[in-house]
Amino acid sequence: MIASLFIIGSEITKGIIGDKHSKMISNELTLLGIKVSRIAFFPDDISIEESIREEKEKSDIIIVTGGLGPTQDDLTRRAISGALNRPLSVDRDAEAWLRAKLKERATGSNLRQAELPEGFFMIDNPNGTAPGFWGEVGRSLIISLPGPPRELEPMLYSSVLPLIREKKGLGEAECDEYSSFLTPEAKLEDLFEEEDSDLSFGTRFQDYKISIYLSGLTKEKREEAIFDIRKKVGDYRIFEKDVEVGKMLFDVLKEKKKTIAFAESCTGGLLSSHFASIPGVSEVFMGSVVSYAYSVKEDVLKVSKETIERYGAVSRECAIEMARGVREKLGSDYAASVTGVAGPKSQEGHSVGHVVFGFSGDRGDVAAEVELGTFSRDAIRRRAVVASMLLMCAYINGDDTASIASSWKAL
Amino acid sequence: MIASLFIIGSEITKGIIGDKHSKMISNELTLLGIKVSRIAFFPDDISIEESIREEKEKSDIIIVTGGLGPTQDDLTRRAISGALNRPLSVDRDAEAWLRAKLKERATGSNLRQAELPEGFFMIDNPNGTAPGFWGEVGRSLIISLPGPPRELEPMLYSSVLPLIREKKGLGEAECDEYSSFLTPEAKLEDLFEEEDSDLSFGTRFQDYKISIYLSGLTKEKREEAIFDIRKKVGDYRIFEKDVEVGKMLFDVLKEKKKTIAFAESCTGGLLSSHFASIPGVSEVFMGSVVSYAYSVKEDVLKVSKETIERYGAVSRECAIEMARGVREKLGSDYAASVTGVAGPKSQEGHSVGHVVFGFSGDRGDVAAEVELGTFSRDAIRRRAVVASMLLMCAYINGDDTASIASSWKAL
Repeated sequence: MIASLFIIGSEITKGIIGDKHSKMISNELTLLGIKVSRIAFFPDDISIEESIREEKEKSDIIIVTGGLGPTQDDLTRRAISGALNRPLSVDRDAEAWLRAKLKERATGSNLRQAELPEGFFMIDNPNGTAPGFWGEVGRSLIISLPGPPRELEPMLYSSVLPLIREKKGLGEAECDEYSSFLTPEAKLEDLFEEEDSDLSFGTRFQDYKISIYLSGLTKEKREEAIFDIRKKVGDYRIFEKDVEVGKMLFDVLKEKKKTIAFAESCTGGLLSSHFASIPGVSEVFMGSVVSYAYSVKEDVLKVSKETIERYGAVSRECAIEMARGVREKLGSDYAASVTGVAGPKSQEGHSVGHVVFGFSGDRGDVAAEVELGTFSRDAIRRRAVVASMLLMCAYINGDDTASIASSWKAL
Repeated sequence: MIASLFIIGSEITKGIIGDKHSKMISNELTLLGIKVSRIAFFPDDISIEESIREEKEKSDIIIVTGGLGPTQDDLTRRAISGALNRPLSVDRDAEAWLRAKLKERATGSNLRQAELPEGFFMIDNPNGTAPGFWGEVGRSLIISLPGPPRELEPMLYSSVLPLIREKKGLGEAECDEYSSFLTPEAKLEDLFEEEDSDLSFGTRFQDYKISIYLSGLTKEKREEAIFDIRKKVGDYRIFEKDVEVGKMLFDVLKEKKKTIAFAESCTGGLLSSHFASIPGVSEVFMGSVVSYAYSVKEDVLKVSKETIERYGAVSRECAIEMARGVREKLGSDYAASVTGVAGPKSQEGHSVGHVVFGFSGDRGDVAAEVELGTFSRDAIRRRAVVASMLLMCAYINGDDTASIASSWKAL
């Protein structure tokens, strides 16, 4: 089954804004087993008409976004009507829906949004006044949606994907979502390719995690595949559903009514700022010390001069003293520390990506070393933030932090 | 003049990765006065061949990216050759270039990258082994570039844009670049629209700044426009050329051989982590204290209990004591502090976006208050980081921090 996406907006073709839809829509279609053969962007004019005419012979599904607002002169509506020779006329459902939405603003130009190509049906838009619409012409299911992301996104999930499944006989897609941490996307793909080839999976890369969407085969087979991959990458790397690592740490602290503080060296404040971005975090977060200079490690965190001279600042000993130091200084229940080599140069004989994590709390002071890989400075810092929070969760849950870290593979 | 972009990559049409090129390329073309009539994405197959055949009658410029690597079976090379009836043959320049690059790896399949469509010329690729190529067919200038951003980007700026200007007789585009801080893109557009309408401008939104590209009219008129806009938004908001605010602060500190420390409340470590992301920053950056809890402000930063009780934690008094406290504690020459309301709820009677900045150093302790606006929590924190660094630069330069902050408009 083949789909085409047409995205309309001069702001995109002029390079003023980036496109936000094509990745989301094509990801969802790919998960349904549909091949997106073409994504095309057009300025706000009717050059799209010809492309729709051509594509309706080739595509099973055509999705057009944008160009539906009243100020845009009903561009998409006219283009689809023209391409398919389906004249526009007022759709009674859409008109009633619009009048209820617009009330006294229901004037001529606004009401033109109720005009649909002959034989087409409206799609509810909970967040706007431009209804979407759909119709079938030959083999093609043609769907038109408004451009603003906050209108399009709910329409996609609550109306369009179910419609495509129904009209194309795809049934309810069984899809499990997992959150994966610290495994690069290419390695995840390799790991899944080693599993059953009838398993289909998609990934979505986010700032601090990769979402995995698994479908195909049976639920049991899918769980087996995840079980295998978990064994290969180590514990605390893949979680069910959509979870954020900072939120996970926040939740476990909140549940236990405990507080936390951080001591950061190579991450330079990124661990704190990521954790602080969670709303309500002040309930558990005391604060942190960013100890970039050795003198700050010694004077503020009370790391002994001897430790730094003997073992270096990137060492288990220093990480432990940093964690213990910030916990005592800030009076928190738990503390995590990070010290390592973010690059671009190696340091104290350690290669780029070598990071040491310290943890302090009711279970004593421990350290864990991880080789996070030769990524960019920013990427290593982000990876260190994720690793620190995952291992801190393990510590609080009573798991063996150091052995979990040493089991980590495919980083 | 009309251009089309064809972007090839199954990872994009499957929604696995987002497209990074189309916004950059179309922005540059728009600045040259060229209308981008079409941007299309294709999977890694030869479905693009037909589109090139059609488009060469309509477009003055066709840019194709991706599909040039040796593993991708020379997809783009074959598609362009087929679409234009220009058979592939080994280009002597490209072969010599490739042999010099590949040395002992110069084998059959690698050397196929030296095959170009008849009458086409190679484009140097400083960061990879796939050369780009260009040729003219009828009215169309056709350009093919490799997909990886770190290969494509330098090729675009050093070869492709000059080639387009030369072949299309656009002359050297007179374009001035400015960096703008804290002004939202829509407000910048409004400000420029109030200026001479023959001025053409483009913006590029980056994480912590917006780049402005001004062209049209005379250099003098463009400078006048920037002068007017500077007057409207206040000092330390628009700078010539491409500057980063963190780098600007780093440079002034390095030049004066001085060190800095930060005390952060609402920014939660983001100021430190942004500053620490600059390579070489350890030369000037001592560290910082993130004082989320009141107890940390009091115990670590020595903010007096009375100050917090009397003026609140979001006050000039508290900001000054935080800055002074961290400077003394960490032994730095300068210190900046940030305390404010990042939202989502108002706090201590201050509305969301109310942020107070403290500065401490050789010129005494001062504070500045700014209303950063009702943005999201993350956006307010990013804006506070930028404001803090701009004002710290002003302090170090001997300017009046508080009056600059109070002159800020269009935030």
